[in-house]
Amino acid sequence: MPDIATTIAIKLIQRESVTPEDGGCQNYIESLLAPLGFVRTHVDTGGITNSIYTRTGELPGTLAFAGHTDVVPTGPVEQWQQPPFSAEIIDGILHGRGAQDMKGAIACWIAAIAELCGEYTPLPTLQLLITSDEEGDSIDGTIRIVEHMQAAATLPDAVIIGEPSCSNSVGDTIRRGRRGVVQVRATIHGKQGHSAYPQDADNAIHRAAPALARIAAIKWGEPSAGFPATSCQITNISGGTGASNVIPGHCDAFIDIRYNPGNSFDEIRAAIEAACADCECTLDFDHVATAFSTPDGPFLDLVCGSILRVTGTETLRDTGGGTSDGRFLAAAGIPVAELGTTNSSIHQVNEQVAVSELATLTAIYSDIIKHFEVLA
Amino acid sequence: MPDIATTIAIKLIQRESVTPEDGGCQNYIESLLAPLGFVRTHVDTGGITNSIYTRTGELPGTLAFAGHTDVVPTGPVEQWQQPPFSAEIIDGILHGRGAQDMKGAIACWIAAIAELCGEYTPLPTLQLLITSDEEGDSIDGTIRIVEHMQAAATLPDAVIIGEPSCSNSVGDTIRRGRRGVVQVRATIHGKQGHSAYPQDADNAIHRAAPALARIAAIKWGEPSAGFPATSCQITNISGGTGASNVIPGHCDAFIDIRYNPGNSFDEIRAAIEAACADCECTLDFDHVATAFSTPDGPFLDLVCGSILRVTGTETLRDTGGGTSDGRFLAAAGIPVAELGTTNSSIHQVNEQVAVSELATLTAIYSDIIKHFEVLA
Ligand SMILES: [Zn+2]
Ligand SMILES: [Zn+2]
Repeated sequence: MPDIATTIAIKLIQRESVTPEDGGCQNYIESLLAPLGFVRTHVDTGGITNSIYTRTGELPGTLAFAGHTDVVPTGPVEQWQQPPFSAEIIDGILHGRGAQDMKGAIACWIAAIAELCGEYTPLPTLQLLITSDEEGDSIDGTIRIVEHMQAAATLPDAVIIGEPSCSNSVGDTIRRGRRGVVQVRATIHGKQGHSAYPQDADNAIHRAAPALARIAAIKWGEPSAGFPATSCQITNISGGTGASNVIPGHCDAFIDIRYNPGNSFDEIRAAIEAACADCECTLDFDHVATAFSTPDGPFLDLVCGSILRVTGTETLRDTGGGTSDGRFLAAAGIPVAELGTTNSSIHQVNEQVAVSELATLTAIYSDIIKHFEVLA
Repeated sequence: MPDIATTIAIKLIQRESVTPEDGGCQNYIESLLAPLGFVRTHVDTGGITNSIYTRTGELPGTLAFAGHTDVVPTGPVEQWQQPPFSAEIIDGILHGRGAQDMKGAIACWIAAIAELCGEYTPLPTLQLLITSDEEGDSIDGTIRIVEHMQAAATLPDAVIIGEPSCSNSVGDTIRRGRRGVVQVRATIHGKQGHSAYPQDADNAIHRAAPALARIAAIKWGEPSAGFPATSCQITNISGGTGASNVIPGHCDAFIDIRYNPGNSFDEIRAAIEAACADCECTLDFDHVATAFSTPDGPFLDLVCGSILRVTGTETLRDTGGGTSDGRFLAAAGIPVAELGTTNSSIHQVNEQVAVSELATLTAIYSDIIKHFEVLA
């Protein structure tokens, strides 16, 4: 007989919810939380299922858990050893899409609350902020929940995000921030012509090469606040008609920048523009995600303290990986810590999680909730 | 009633001979030249029709005319105002594929000879070196004729090539040489990875950009011997998978170099290799065409003198444009001058030539043949 967290995880995995679908997960979560005193608020927008579940507490302060019920597509089903939505347990391992990212963590948080409520432990106000739009565009997901809470003046004091943050064992790593993302489409202009008559043409590749070399050589500064250094990668380039003797009239490049909070979007844009100053070009900037970072302080100390009590593990306060919905919460001024399962199989075939991890994560979540106090 | 040159040009245009086809042109030429005392030698190789027509002269020395009976494809036939092989004359303009490049010039040369023979003018030994492989690969065309003549010790003392050399009027420009062509396929190697983890990857575009910038900045020297400066054009570049977040493992570039005789292939290769020395790359060099140049001297003076006598025009001794079969003859040590019609419509739809141009060109050719003397 699986424990409560595992049982909930199985039921969530069995509800197929490939992004942006919710697959009935949030109704199922409501059925679990309502008996514990939670009230659900729907914040659905743009075909996305968004829910805020709120239980007014006996203690001051509000602690939120944020997560997503959508999962990435399965990939080739025939490569899965178990059907991706069957949620079978074999030798202590729960198999299925979403086991790590992040139905397992949602199940652990609910199991922790259920246990605490069953023990009549006095609790702070608790919120679960759940979206079905994290793995897709993230346009109508957590950002809409934050907007709703800002308008309703119900922002929490701190938030745990259930993203799979751990490397080898539960609690070895939390994410306290993420790098920002800027993407640039650059088109360097010249004038097309025949390579036998270069005087009548202006080779766009010749203009692009030194500009791109300057972009690749920009010094973005050192690693800061636990972040790796800002990385700027020209990931795609194309120029020319394919003919050997046609001087190209334009050259296109795509630049992917992951920046740490030591840089700003404006600073990044200025640096790219300066590198291209001597050529006629069109630069189309997309600020995909803002960098965020929760500073050291009582909330991160609380999270790491709970991990230490439950597992004896010293926790790395990390900022690696891509972006996360934490940016929307952090932008509202809320301390954010991402803590979930290990992430060895996320977004891959045969996604899986050890049942023992779910038990450990449930115990850590329970300890965090019990020790939460309103932060200064 | 058209003159002889125009009549021959019409008959040649009407024989469809899209490269590498001859379309019976060289048999027709034989039917014209045999009564004048020419003997035809077949030098067919690789499916190409090559002919040497020789008339032993009354005077010392050998003057050759080189040309091609093949033409480029018509392009969209519906865009032609006249059918491309109908060879119609409208308002003094002869329309058809090959009118300028270069059936018109072949017709003029034959008409000039016919007239001189009819007048019993004493002549040097005359050769017509005709191939059907100029507009295509040029692998089994004029080069095979030169090899044959080298083996038979029948190389001429000088050669007129009937390529359309003129800009606005017949005789305003001859080509005394052509730039050489080197093409390079460059693949710059790196290591593919994810743009969030740049420390595990090696961006091939970042390695390529400074190397290509160095290539674009190479100083190839000044214009020399009437040649424009060597031109090096990166005509194509591609790198990246199309995904925004994948650091590319390789970047491909294509480089088209037109060089003047002041540079050599070995020097060009060394310069490109030096520009790429600090990155791991594969460079595939193709020496497509060797540069050639006929120095100032009695042959070019003869040609320009004939033009001046016939037209009153001062002639530009040019080296522009792409490559030509002249490189094979020049490589055998033969002075080369390219002189034909204007080139305003070559390789385009509605190729055409003024009948008056053919008359002028015939008169110039006749004057050259009459004044030819063995060169020192
Ligand atoms: Zn996730
Ligand atoms: Zn030609």
